[in-house]
Amino acid sequence: MGDGGDGNAAYGHKRFERSASRFTDRITADGRDGWPVEAGRYRLVVSRACPWASRAVISRRLLGLEDALSMAIADPVQDDRSWRFTLDPGGRDPVLGIRYLSEAYERRESDPPGGVSVPAVVDVPSGKLVTNDYRQLTLDLATEWSALHRPGAPDLYPERLRDQIDTVMAEVYEDVNNGVYRAGFASEQKEYEQACADVFRRLELLASRLAGQRYLVGDTITEADIRLFTTLVRFDAVYHGHFKCNRWKLTENPVLWAYARDLFQTPGFGDTVDFDHIKRHYYQVHTGINPTRIVPLGPDLAGWRSPHRREDLGGRPFGDGTPPGPVRAQEQVPARGRP
Amino acid sequence: MGDGGDGNAAYGHKRFERSASRFTDRITADGRDGWPVEAGRYRLVVSRACPWASRAVISRRLLGLEDALSMAIADPVQDDRSWRFTLDPGGRDPVLGIRYLSEAYERRESDPPGGVSVPAVVDVPSGKLVTNDYRQLTLDLATEWSALHRPGAPDLYPERLRDQIDTVMAEVYEDVNNGVYRAGFASEQKEYEQACADVFRRLELLASRLAGQRYLVGDTITEADIRLFTTLVRFDAVYHGHFKCNRWKLTENPVLWAYARDLFQTPGFGDTVDFDHIKRHYYQVHTGINPTRIVPLGPDLAGWRSPHRREDLGGRPFGDGTPPGPVRAQEQVPARGRP
Repeated sequence: MGDGGDGNAAYGHKRFERSASRFTDRITADGRDGWPVEAGRYRLVVSRACPWASRAVISRRLLGLEDALSMAIADPVQDDRSWRFTLDPGGRDPVLGIRYLSEAYERRESDPPGGVSVPAVVDVPSGKLVTNDYRQLTLDLATEWSALHRPGAPDLYPERLRDQIDTVMAEVYEDVNNGVYRAGFASEQKEYEQACADVFRRLELLASRLAGQRYLVGDTITEADIRLFTTLVRFDAVYHGHFKCNRWKLTENPVLWAYARDLFQTPGFGDTVDFDHIKRHYYQVHTGINPTRIVPLGPDLAGWRSPHRREDLGGRPFGDGTPPGPVRAQEQVPARGRP
Repeated sequence: MGDGGDGNAAYGHKRFERSASRFTDRITADGRDGWPVEAGRYRLVVSRACPWASRAVISRRLLGLEDALSMAIADPVQDDRSWRFTLDPGGRDPVLGIRYLSEAYERRESDPPGGVSVPAVVDVPSGKLVTNDYRQLTLDLATEWSALHRPGAPDLYPERLRDQIDTVMAEVYEDVNNGVYRAGFASEQKEYEQACADVFRRLELLASRLAGQRYLVGDTITEADIRLFTTLVRFDAVYHGHFKCNRWKLTENPVLWAYARDLFQTPGFGDTVDFDHIKRHYYQVHTGINPTRIVPLGPDLAGWRSPHRREDLGGRPFGDGTPPGPVRAQEQVPARGRP
């Protein structure tokens, strides 16, 4: 998750370890944790820079939950007081009325341990944080929130495929999603080398798997694709240079580059990506590995819009469903963040 | 040149500026500066990591000066006392008998200003530094040392082409050779952006020029090619990530990548390149931009040996001459430094 752990604190340790989410209440159809699914009640707080938050941004689009679950977008560069709403008029989130995401955490629990992270879901009436459990959040959007899905929403976590999906997601998490962080925040050469080797060994295996099939599991887009995409889309922009995952660029791996472009060009994926936020966050926040805070001009992003030819592999992106409609005007990614 | 200016001192300034060489005596055929060309009298001190020193390493090979001008190879990671001979038995250069290159500087002038840099030429009998003027050194090897050239040595600085060669070398120096340093050592965003833009604008112009001709000037290898090569061969390994020159990798520019591979595979170029020295020097010495001193595993270097098809453009690499013979056994680049 995007938190203080993405900043300098994380590599004071000998080995980078991602801290567990502290608030794991679930918003469910039956409301068993006290938080029933309800249109308009909750606010999803994200940073477009953060890969863990971006999973929820994509799921929300694919499932058509924009009207049911509103979204606050934090400044990509957090400060000592946490994620800030400096992109909004007056520097306050217009729905929650707060300046810092930490305020919602503090309403939930005074002096909350474990850092202030995105994604976070906040209960609008009370202003309290409900959950920052990025692992469970998107699964719940896919399954517990189904009464509020748009007509034609895809099934992102089909029951008959869950074992396969869970297996591939666990591998992708360990070696790729979190592997790039273990490489980038390593404080010793051996630790870095192990992590970087893990990243590329797993990517090679994934490329073999994806050479003959359009998506990771089954013939439709699932949660597993969302979780791989959020790392791949950041790969050349930040992980390759800033995190030293540089055996090759994504653009140099024909299978994964085509797979990533295919998803990028699918409604709900690329239209949520802000490369400006991504680059500024990583390069300006992690002063322990980029003391100058200079943000690189590259990479050239034009290729993200180029033809990918993955349709030749077949597959039905949305299964029996349909693609999501256009992005809401107020949620458009500004031009400077787009390829 | 490779000196303290490659280290942390250089970007304490608001704008990176390369200091001029301090010792500019010339070794000439007529000995007018007191240093006549003479076989066995001088020792060339280099680091294989340093692009400025590597010009001389390549020229010496192409011209067959190995027996006339011996070579000392410094450890790629210098310390506070300057470049070290820690690769040699007992940590001393076997010919000069010194542990640090600074000792030769101090024999020339006590408390020498301007830093201790490579390439350096040392007078063996007196142990004194003669010159650290990397700009003039290779031109003198090509023109003043001709009596000692091997049979079949190429003319690297042909008189009738000198104006053209000087012009392209000046552009390449400003925007490319030194441009990558201006980008990498920038302390402010604007300064970096200007330098990075200069690098890629010039590289695009050079790619246009080289799309239809095999070498930069005329139809043979000249000093201009040597000076462009020493930056290109380091581009993906260090300048792309470490110096943030990351609009694209060299491997992504078909013309320049083929041009660089063509030279790399030409005897006298690639056989002088030690990627291990290059990577360790840049990533371990510049702690101001890489505080962890971690050296990346990438990039994958296998492509350097792949076919380049530049022969189709014609050209006569060595003009009326011939390629140099094999590398001397004691000057072979160790396996860990080769692609």
